[in-house]
Parts: sequence; C-alpha cells; structure tokens
Amino acid sequence: MPSAAGRGQGQDQDHRPDSKESAAADDYAKERYGVSSMIQSQEKPDRVLIRIKDLTVEKADEVVWVRGRIHTSRAKGKQCFLVLRQQQFNIQALVAVGQHASKQMVKFAANINKESIVDVEGVVRKAYQKIGGCTQQDVELHVQRIYVISLAEPRLPLQLDDAVRPEVEGEEDGRATVNQDTRLDNRVIDLRTSTSQAIFCLQSGICQLFRETLIRKGFVEIQTPKIISAASEGGANVFTVSYFKSSAYLAQSPQLYKQMCICADFEKVFCVGPVFRAEDSNTHRHLTEFVGLDIEMAFNYHYHEVVDEIADTLVQIFKGLQERFQTEIQTVSKQFPCEPFKFLEPTLRLEYCEAVAMLREAGVEMGDEEDLSTPNEKLLGRLVKEKYDTDFYILDKYPLAVRPFYTMPDPVNPKNSNSYDMFMRGEEILSGAQRIHDPQLLTERAQHHGIDLEKIKAYIDSFRFGAPPHAGGGIGLERVTMLYLGLHNVRQTSMFPRDPKRLTP
Amino acid sequence: MPSAAGRGQGQDQDHRPDSKESAAADDYAKERYGVSSMIQSQEKPDRVLIRIKDLTVEKADEVVWVRGRIHTSRAKGKQCFLVLRQQQFNIQALVAVGQHASKQMVKFAANINKESIVDVEGVVRKAYQKIGGCTQQDVELHVQRIYVISLAEPRLPLQLDDAVRPEVEGEEDGRATVNQDTRLDNRVIDLRTSTSQAIFCLQSGICQLFRETLIRKGFVEIQTPKIISAASEGGANVFTVSYFKSSAYLAQSPQLYKQMCICADFEKVFCVGPVFRAEDSNTHRHLTEFVGLDIEMAFNYHYHEVVDEIADTLVQIFKGLQERFQTEIQTVSKQFPCEPFKFLEPTLRLEYCEAVAMLREAGVEMGDEEDLSTPNEKLLGRLVKEKYDTDFYILDKYPLAVRPFYTMPDPVNPKNSNSYDMFMRGEEILSGAQRIHDPQLLTERAQHHGIDLEKIKAYIDSFRFGAPPHAGGGIGLERVTMLYLGLHNVRQTSMFPRDPKRLTP
Repeated sequence: MPSAAGRGQGQDQDHRPDSKESAAADDYAKERYGVSSMIQSQEKPDRVLIRIKDLTVEKADEVVWVRGRIHTSRAKGKQCFLVLRQQQFNIQALVAVGQHASKQMVKFAANINKESIVDVEGVVRKAYQKIGGCTQQDVELHVQRIYVISLAEPRLPLQLDDAVRPEVEGEEDGRATVNQDTRLDNRVIDLRTSTSQAIFCLQSGICQLFRETLIRKGFVEIQTPKIISAASEGGANVFTVSYFKSSAYLAQSPQLYKQMCICADFEKVFCVGPVFRAEDSNTHRHLTEFVGLDIEMAFNYHYHEVVDEIADTLVQIFKGLQERFQTEIQTVSKQFPCEPFKFLEPTLRLEYCEAVAMLREAGVEMGDEEDLSTPNEKLLGRLVKEKYDTDFYILDKYPLAVRPFYTMPDPVNPKNSNSYDMFMRGEEILSGAQRIHDPQLLTERAQHHGIDLEKIKAYIDSFRFGAPPHAGGGIGLERVTMLYLGLHNVRQTSMFPRDPKRLTP
Repeated sequence: MPSAAGRGQGQDQDHRPDSKESAAADDYAKERYGVSSMIQSQEKPDRVLIRIKDLTVEKADEVVWVRGRIHTSRAKGKQCFLVLRQQQFNIQALVAVGQHASKQMVKFAANINKESIVDVEGVVRKAYQKIGGCTQQDVELHVQRIYVISLAEPRLPLQLDDAVRPEVEGEEDGRATVNQDTRLDNRVIDLRTSTSQAIFCLQSGICQLFRETLIRKGFVEIQTPKIISAASEGGANVFTVSYFKSSAYLAQSPQLYKQMCICADFEKVFCVGPVFRAEDSNTHRHLTEFVGLDIEMAFNYHYHEVVDEIADTLVQIFKGLQERFQTEIQTVSKQFPCEPFKFLEPTLRLEYCEAVAMLREAGVEMGDEEDLSTPNEKLLGRLVKEKYDTDFYILDKYPLAVRPFYTMPDPVNPKNSNSYDMFMRGEEILSGAQRIHDPQLLTERAQHHGIDLEKIKAYIDSFRFGAPPHAGGGIGLERVTMLYLGLHNVRQTSMFPRDPKRLTP
C-alpha cells in the first residue's frame, strides 16, 4: 500500500467506517484519510505533533499535525465541523470538500465515533469570529488529512457535555446531567471531562506542595507498612487480610510507625499513603480507603511548635494552589460555583471552650466534654467565617474524653488535652495531638480506655529507650481537595473511590 | 520547688537515678542536674537549643543548650565523659567536679542510662587534639547543667556501636556485630544508627528526585486504590481481604489503574505507593509489601519515547543523589564499602538477543526464548560492567513468551515483544513494556494465556472508547536504594520489612 506523502508512518490503513464508498476509484483524496493500523512501534517518524493549547493566532497559516479526540462532530452539506479535544483544551476543525478533501473524506470524518483518537493534518486559520465552546477561540484548523488512531465504540455510556453541566442548570431547563453512580461506573470517561482533569491536576499539586514545604522545613519522607500484625488503635473498624497461613490487618493509619520513627531519631517525618477504615459509613465524606498526608515531629517544649508547622504547611498549600492552579480552579468553578477559599496568616486558633461558647450563643445545647456533631461543625464553620472571615482555622484543647488513649492530657486542666483538629469550610480535615511519650502514662491511659495491653505491647515498648516529646496529625487528601474547591462529595476527589458499597472499577 | 536560673522551664525535678546522695544538703550543684518532669507543654520558654552539627570552633567559649541522647558515658575519677548524639552527629561532653559540678552531679551524669535524652547546658571549648569517634572533632562541651528529658531503660536490646561495625571486621577480630533478626526485632534502636539514618534519608531523597523529575517533565501524580475487587493480573500471589460481607484483594501493582488514567487522558502519570505480593519467596530481594514507583505514559509513535523518559528519570535520580547525599553515601560506605555507582549518558540499551549472545560467549547454555535466571542476571551485570563500564542499563525486546499477556508483541518478530527491564548492579529494578491498547488484540492475548476473560472484563472494557498507545514501568524503591548503595539485602532498605515470616514490628 502506498505511503501518503507527509504521513511518514507508512502504516497500513483501511477505510472501515465507510469502506465501500470511500474506496471508490474516483476518490481523489483516498490517501488522505482512513483508519491507521494499530501503533505497535513500527517506526520512529520525525513528525512533530503540536499541542492543542499551543494553537493560537501566532501559528496562523502554518500546517500542523495534531493528535486529539473527536469531542463532537456535526456534518452540514459539504462540510463537517469537528471539535478536537486534548485534556482541558479543544479546537474547532473543519473538513470541507475542496482541494484536499473529497465528499467521501468529509463523510468519513463525520462518521468517526465520538471519543475516537485521530491524527489530523491541517492549516491553522484565524477565525472570523470567536468560536464559542472551544478553549482555542481565535483559530480553527482546516483539515487536510485525518486518520483514526484508536476507534471508540459507537455508544458512549455517558456524554461528556452532560457530565460538565452545572446541576442547577439541569434543574432549570431539563437538560441532562449525569448521576454519580453512572459517573463512577464509567470513570474512565468521566475522568476525561475538563472538571475531572482540573480536579486531579490540582490534587496532584496538593501532594507536591505538601511535600515541597515539608522537605524545605527539614522533614524526611518515610514509608510505613500497610499490612500489620496487630490493630494498634483498638481493633474496631479494621480490615482483615489472609497472610499465608495466618492473618493480619490493614493499617488504619501510620500512627504507630510514624511515632516509632520519632523514637528512632528521625525528628520530623511525613508520609503520603493509603489509609484503610472498615467503617460502614455511607456519607458524603467517608471512604473505606483514602490517602493520608501524615506528619509527626519531635518538639522542644510545647506542642504548639508542631501545630504552627502543620498550619503553615497547609497555608503554603493554599497559596501554592492559588498561584499555580488558577486555570484549574476556574475550570471547576464553571461546573461547581463557589466562593474563593479564604485563610488568615497566622492561622486562627480557637480553644474548644470558645467554640462551645459560640455554639451556645447560637442556640446549641451541648456539654463541655461533648464532641462536635457534624451539623455543629458546619454551624461553627459559618459562625467563624462571619466573625473572622476565614475558611481555615484550628480548634485546640479538645476534651480528653473524646480523644484516643495516646493523647497527652493538658497539664493544667486534666479534663482537657493537648489535641487539635483543623477545619476547612466547616469540615474537619486534620486531627492531631501531642502524643504521650512516657511508657508509664501511656499504659495508664490505655488501661483507663479498657484496651488490652497485650495487643499494644509493641507500641508501648517503642517508648522505653528514650522518646522525645512529639506531636503530629493526619490530613485527608480527598477532603482537602473537596473543600478547597467547594465540592460536596469526597467521591468527586477520589479517582477510584472505595466505600462500603463500591469496590469497582 | 525553686526554678533554677537559666532553666526557664520551671518543671518539677527529682534526682531519681541517685536520689539519696545527690539530695544531700551539702550538694552545692543540686539545682544543676536531675530528672525533668515529663514535658507536657507546660510552658513556652525562649531557650534556644543548638543543633549538635552546628557546634564548631566558631562557637568556642559560647554557652549553649543542647538536647541529645547519651551515646556513651565513661566516668574517670572526678570526671565523666559523655558522647551526646543527635541523628548522625555527636560531640564529646565533659562533666568535671569544679565550680559548676559537684561530685554528686558527676556521679549522676555517669549513671544516666545510655540512649536517654538529656538537655545539657555547657560551654563550647576548642579541643586540644582531634576527638576521635565524634563527628564534631574540634570542640567539646563543658557541662554546667544536665537534666534527663526521657530516661531509657538500662538494658538495651542491641548496642549501636555493634550495629554499625563492618561485618568483615567482626570476623577478623571477634568483635560483636548484630544479626539481622535482632536488628529488625528492635528496629527503633537499629534505625538510630548512623548507617540507618543515612540509608533512609537517601531513600527519602530518591522519592523526591523521582517526583521532581517527573513533575518537571509534565507528569501528573495519581492515587490508585489498593483494595480491588478482581485480581487483574491473573490471580496468583494475591492477598485476600475481608470486605464487609464480601471479600476483595490487595493490588499487586497499580497496572490497571495507571492504564485507566491513560485512557482517561492524563497522558503522563506516576504514583508512589505500596504494592503487595503474596509470594512465598524468602530471598534477599523479595518482600511481600514494597514501595512501587510507577510510571505510565501515552506516546506518539514508538515506545522508546517512554523508555527514554524513564531512563532519564533514573539518571536524574542518580545525579541528584551524588549531588545532595554525598554525606549519607560516605556514612553507609563506612559500614558497607562498595564501588561508586556508575552510569552512562545516554543510558546503555541492549537487546535481549545481545544479552543472550554475551552469556553464551561466557559459557551459559540457554534458549532464545528463555527468561534470565537470577544468577544469569548477575553474571550479565558483570559482563556489561566489564564491556561498557556502567552499573545501569536497559535490556530491551524480551521474548513475548516470558512477559504478561498485556505486553505488545514486536511488529517485526512476533516471538519478541516491546518490553524491557532495567538493571542496577546486575539486578532488575524495573520491568516495563508497551501495553496493548487495542481491546481485540488484548482479548486474544488473554485467551492465549488461558486467562478467564470474565475476570478481566473491566480491564479490557477500559480500552473500548479510544485508547492512545502507551507504555510504562514499575520501579521497586527498596531495590533502587539497596543497589545504589551496594547493600545486599532489601530488608536493610525497608524501614519495617514484610516477608512471609515477618509481620512485626
């Protein structure tokens, strides 16, 4: 089979989508379109593929090659308008009967299934007027060749345009939106939307900013095991694993291991990894597997040294997102409008008793040593926003009774503890505390909580050979992404979410 | 109790280790030493603690506060010599009877258990001669106050000096070394050695360099689920998890998910996370849980585009380690001497058939489509090192028969495949390939391998709506650390290793 000039790939092609007609001998453009054979690394051509986002008026009248997906296609007489998409960017492409394209070629182009990947050669032309609905509004591509690289099946499980439509609009005019289960069942398609692309690029950024900041502060990254022999934090809500002829558990947090690293003199450590909770909670913010951003740090005299480092790390993340991910933030807000995320420097720190007082003033009845319910957390978030104009704050000095056994009691008021949560838009994203580093006190507190000492022996023994005072906390990555962007379900910020009812894909 | 001037903490103290004698009324230094009460964040003193590594002759004659561990202590008449340690650094401290210290205070200091954490106030003095065995050789600390912050139990399960002794020396002179099980059973102590500190700081560096390089190359970090509903890669060697009323598996690799991200248009992705293998292999290089550094990337025409990116990423890691972790490399080589790691730019790439030819020339009998055994891998590593002077190379074009079903066959010779391994010092650290992106061919290859199509339906379906050609690979973090440093067991480079026989600590 002859290799068309300018193609440079020399791959076999056929014209399957419309083979009878287009193969006709009178088709003067028959070498200019078709279905490429599967790319199997046959050749290393020197053809350059231009990124769609780089197609601007500066490239006007240049001939370029582009690889993209058929986002939409619309045939109209002797013309076919395609929208070619590449990640968050797209451009209009025109195949029109003329010197380069025959009527068979236009028909071929019009019949390519949506989401198929194509290689297109075309001339960049300045558009007469702004092209609405495309990111590249000032140019269009006049197609001279088009080859299918990977053909999509004809029936898509969901339409990308439906998947990015704001929910409220759907209610108003009856246009289709896509429900969450359909999205998650067909996640490969759903992740192609501009909103999903933006959410997960930004989430990648959160991880980078978290680590960049901590490395700069002298922290060391650690890797902690996920298969563990004993459920260190009590034993409830833990997944069991068959381990050869025995059994083991999935770690509910890196708690024990990051503390062991402190006892092993690493001083300041962090880790990023999966955390497993066998909790049968079917809420907007619980997952059975999520990504923990964990910090643990030895301090000199006061756990506020650690609180300040953690709060500053989050502030550096917020600032970095503002600076580096403005496009992504704007893209998501088109589908999910929300107020920009506000924070103060230094971070607002309130004591638990102050929060209780604010809630009582707002009419809530609650005891001094009672934990915050989810609705009260939300309400408190609104009260704090009104009073201090911040979406991010720290709540310090929780009642000892509502915290885990390893939490250091307050030295002044024994009903309180050296523990804290951090909140974004009224929802908890971090829980942390000074930990007890004295094996004797740790034993007493475990006994007080009715914990079987035999099961946590290894944990307690870690502190017997000199342990520095230390504190830390664990951040839920998916929650940070969700709340920063003002989204409403943590499943939107987990690529492949796991909950009690969902294990696939 | 009166607060000693300069202490500033106001903590209760007693003199437990030697209370009768030191509490005597005639002890003029009795406020200058003791056991501090547990640091419970009582106060925020403005005392500055100086890092031991910063104690140099520039600080001569300054009074400083230091927090460190008692590494060794040796009493000699009216003097006690302590070595104070902080991570990889240590300094000699002298407590001598005189203006600031009584004989009770010297005795107290001498009796503090090794590995206890102490706060010391002292004057930095220029040493008369180099102090052997300390990192701070030119100064010593003349102690004026000493308080125990966290007391270690008297009997250590292993001695740190034994744990850093080179093995060969132990054989020669009969001095003690520490065996691997004792180390791992008491990992918190073993991780305090200068060798362990250096290994894991360098390993943290490998992760940073891996991600820095890929982010610069335009990759996006993804998070893939570890609990999966179907064993995508066949079903052998997989751990089973109880999942509420059903069961699930632990992911043997992020393979399916990183490929799904490619099908979802993320184009270039990486992830760092745990990988689980229920393989009953008790070797120096197998773990049941290890950290995978995974890459997947869409390419334009040839999978070598991806091979080049991966190889360059590893080269950037090697260079970064050389530049930023020279101290750590030197520290490890004191205990485990080895040749510096050598690599070429661009990376050497050999074809599998060339390797077979080299092995045959060296006397090995093997078939063309036979996989490399571990001894042959090692031998090949030596042959390549002799011929090309590199510890790092790529072996390309493996026989199709020895690779997983999703490997793209070679377009020219159907017995070969578009797949590759990468080696460091003769051991495999990465396995990768161009993947089949065509659902029809993928189905055929799975059937050829006798795989139940029903079990991998979700996997195959991912490619039905347009999939770009792509390739990738997975790197074992612990192996990279081990082989870069010329160590001999992967358990040395896993903080808390998991193998068929070890699940603790």
